[in-house]
Amino acid sequence: MKEFPGTPGTVLGLILRMSQFIFATPSIGYMVTTTSFMDITAFCYLVAAMGLQAIWSFLLALMDAYAVVRKKVLHNPALVSLYLVGDWVSATLSLAAACSSAGIIVLYFHDLGHCYFGEKCRSYQISVGFAFLSWIPTSISSLIMLWLLAGG
Amino acid sequence: MKEFPGTPGTVLGLILRMSQFIFATPSIGYMVTTTSFMDITAFCYLVAAMGLQAIWSFLLALMDAYAVVRKKVLHNPALVSLYLVGDWVSATLSLAAACSSAGIIVLYFHDLGHCYFGEKCRSYQISVGFAFLSWIPTSISSLIMLWLLAGG
Repeated sequence: MKEFPGTPGTVLGLILRMSQFIFATPSIGYMVTTTSFMDITAFCYLVAAMGLQAIWSFLLALMDAYAVVRKKVLHNPALVSLYLVGDWVSATLSLAAACSSAGIIVLYFHDLGHCYFGEKCRSYQISVGFAFLSWIPTSISSLIMLWLLAGG
Repeated sequence: MKEFPGTPGTVLGLILRMSQFIFATPSIGYMVTTTSFMDITAFCYLVAAMGLQAIWSFLLALMDAYAVVRKKVLHNPALVSLYLVGDWVSATLSLAAACSSAGIIVLYFHDLGHCYFGEKCRSYQISVGFAFLSWIPTSISSLIMLWLLAGG
């Protein structure tokens, strides 16, 4: 397997994993602090998807950091296949969660005229924004994994 | 480029394109017949995304049908790159539109207790269901295109 920037064990790969984790955690944080997020299914789903995203990217960031420090190559086909499946599931769930929550936010802010949740509205918006930011590096990672595996 | 089932110009490729079109059109149809869909941004976005999906998959189905009948191979790298970009944009927009609309439907049916739109509720649900069904073959096509291009 050819090594190129963004593949497991490279510095760009580590940066992508870290950015996934760095954006996923405040998304959970802002949503959880509202407490009322439990009343809306899409917001609960966002917390679950971002939780999965944060755990997955944190574990892979640790592996990438170890590989970068020890200068090891993590291009085992079985490992890349596992990364690929995990990244695809994670990217799909993140986008689905961010979009379903964004749909509700647009409904309240735009379609119904204003948000009825008071100060929590701002937190909902910021949380969804971070979820979208977390999805971007996740989708890049998943594309890189597929490219790496298909390239042989 | 290696030819395998699902690539442009194959029978499976044609079936995938046709199923994308077949599921996208009733999704638009059920939503548009409600007329009140214009009041909710996510539902307008669903119609736009499914419209784009229907046009894109219809054009590519015609090309695939031509290639299957004439037994031509459509594996030009520039053409596959165009297919790849189009499929990725289409798949991402379809999933985003289906999820944002699904978020609102779950909000009305589950979180708020019941749907206030009367008979239109059923049409909204069916439309979103078809949008998800259209997204499945689109995502398969986009994965096949990336695999084909990366494999060389």
